[in-house]
Amino acid sequence: MIWINGSLVPADKARLDPRDRGYTLGDGLFETMRARGGSVPLIERHLARLRAGAVEIGLPLPWEDGELSEAVSRTLAAGGLADAAVRLTVSRGVPQQRGLLPDPEPRPSLVIQAHPFGGYPDHLYERGMHAITSAIPRNERSPLANVKSLSYLENVLARREAAERRADEALLRNTSGDLACASAANLFLVLGDELVTPDLGSGALPGTVRDLVLAELAPRLGLSVSERAVCPEEMEAAGEAFLTSALLGVMPLTRVDGLSIEAGTPGPASLALRRKLERLWEAAGGGGV
Amino acid sequence: MIWINGSLVPADKARLDPRDRGYTLGDGLFETMRARGGSVPLIERHLARLRAGAVEIGLPLPWEDGELSEAVSRTLAAGGLADAAVRLTVSRGVPQQRGLLPDPEPRPSLVIQAHPFGGYPDHLYERGMHAITSAIPRNERSPLANVKSLSYLENVLARREAAERRADEALLRNTSGDLACASAANLFLVLGDELVTPDLGSGALPGTVRDLVLAELAPRLGLSVSERAVCPEEMEAAGEAFLTSALLGVMPLTRVDGLSIEAGTPGPASLALRRKLERLWEAAGGGGV
Repeated sequence: MIWINGSLVPADKARLDPRDRGYTLGDGLFETMRARGGSVPLIERHLARLRAGAVEIGLPLPWEDGELSEAVSRTLAAGGLADAAVRLTVSRGVPQQRGLLPDPEPRPSLVIQAHPFGGYPDHLYERGMHAITSAIPRNERSPLANVKSLSYLENVLARREAAERRADEALLRNTSGDLACASAANLFLVLGDELVTPDLGSGALPGTVRDLVLAELAPRLGLSVSERAVCPEEMEAAGEAFLTSALLGVMPLTRVDGLSIEAGTPGPASLALRRKLERLWEAAGGGGV
Repeated sequence: MIWINGSLVPADKARLDPRDRGYTLGDGLFETMRARGGSVPLIERHLARLRAGAVEIGLPLPWEDGELSEAVSRTLAAGGLADAAVRLTVSRGVPQQRGLLPDPEPRPSLVIQAHPFGGYPDHLYERGMHAITSAIPRNERSPLANVKSLSYLENVLARREAAERRADEALLRNTSGDLACASAANLFLVLGDELVTPDLGSGALPGTVRDLVLAELAPRLGLSVSERAVCPEEMEAAGEAFLTSALLGVMPLTRVDGLSIEAGTPGPASLALRRKLERLWEAAGGGGV
């Protein structure tokens, strides 16, 4: 079942107006979330990021957080889904006028989809992900660098590049050559006894798990954190590395461009952070896992 | 009437699957074309660019040029439209699998819309357009810099910036600070007796009218042309400037960031090129204008 503009309809019957600016111009935003026990723990973090993106692109959202949250829960319930990957899409809707300029009073579309998802398999966490460094430079000075927008084709191309090179993910460098993030995840390195992640100015997306690691999980483990420019050469000095996203949680990164990071096995910081995150999610979840 | 995946349906009845990657990820391409007398003159130039973009993003197109051209003509005929703005959208369609990675064998969507359009009003050509220089840097090193993709939100934001500053268009500089193009048009300057336009390496879109000006129209007028990096300061030295696109044709640019270009009136090169272009379009048009 898909939620579309106030109604729940079977996925193959749901129909969007092809004039919607989400389709014609990539003019909108999205969130990918993980549901547990029929609801999304810490959904307020996703909705806060959505609202920040909406301000950046000048799209007034006509829904309260409670309404969005309720729509997500109803979509999950309608599909009989407890553990799921949930995608929430907001777009600028069908315009009154032709052209690039948005209507002064747009009527945004809201689409919510959910798929059964119980997490990636254990053996992937045990092996860790392998990444390549993409040839596609991420424009850290774009107003969209910190926005999860529907104009996502560069990320698609980076992920395709990773698959062609038989890797799981692609790391993106920005136009200055520093590391920014992965195609659909944030990047962390352990350097000495410090946890380091590219800052937002480097073009990192403000990931919800990234924020949790920085503000709550790392401090609880006594790890000092630093958001700053990270150059690719620092990868060689890293004791360990990992990726974060709502669906991955904390995923070890054990190989980049064919070279192992340290021993090429998941490190203690990522394992401890993953355990903390799982516990946090369980505690925050409505129905428990 | 809208053409959608092989059928013509009334615009307000046309429905796209909201799982289409054009909507969820800006994963697709588009062309904006001008029809005269019921068909699009030189449509082959648009279709060639579409195919080049499809190669760049790795999207096999299952349609011959003749089929696409026929679909455009049928859409125009169904709407009773002779002179129109036509928008053709191709997207990667509804995927089999969740996530960023495209299916190995996608089933792309094709949407064609047309609106009555007889050209912009004469008084706009007589006044010329006013532009601002956008604060949004265009990433000239992105594989999408030369592709008219559905991930178009940066262009939307640039146009919005222009409107907020009471201008008609926004000029985009690339990450090196050179001029690349406008939000939905190419840029030309007359410097001395030479016609200069940002090269593709600067992040210019390979516009169909840009190509015509470079390869056919300017040579016929005895104007020498140069595609190269253009820095913003050269605007001050320009004897005239103009914008090109399929809908604008050749549009004088008479003011940038509040400063007049030369006398602030349309220059002779843009007037002569516009006349040549109109004649070329009329000669190429199926039904005449």
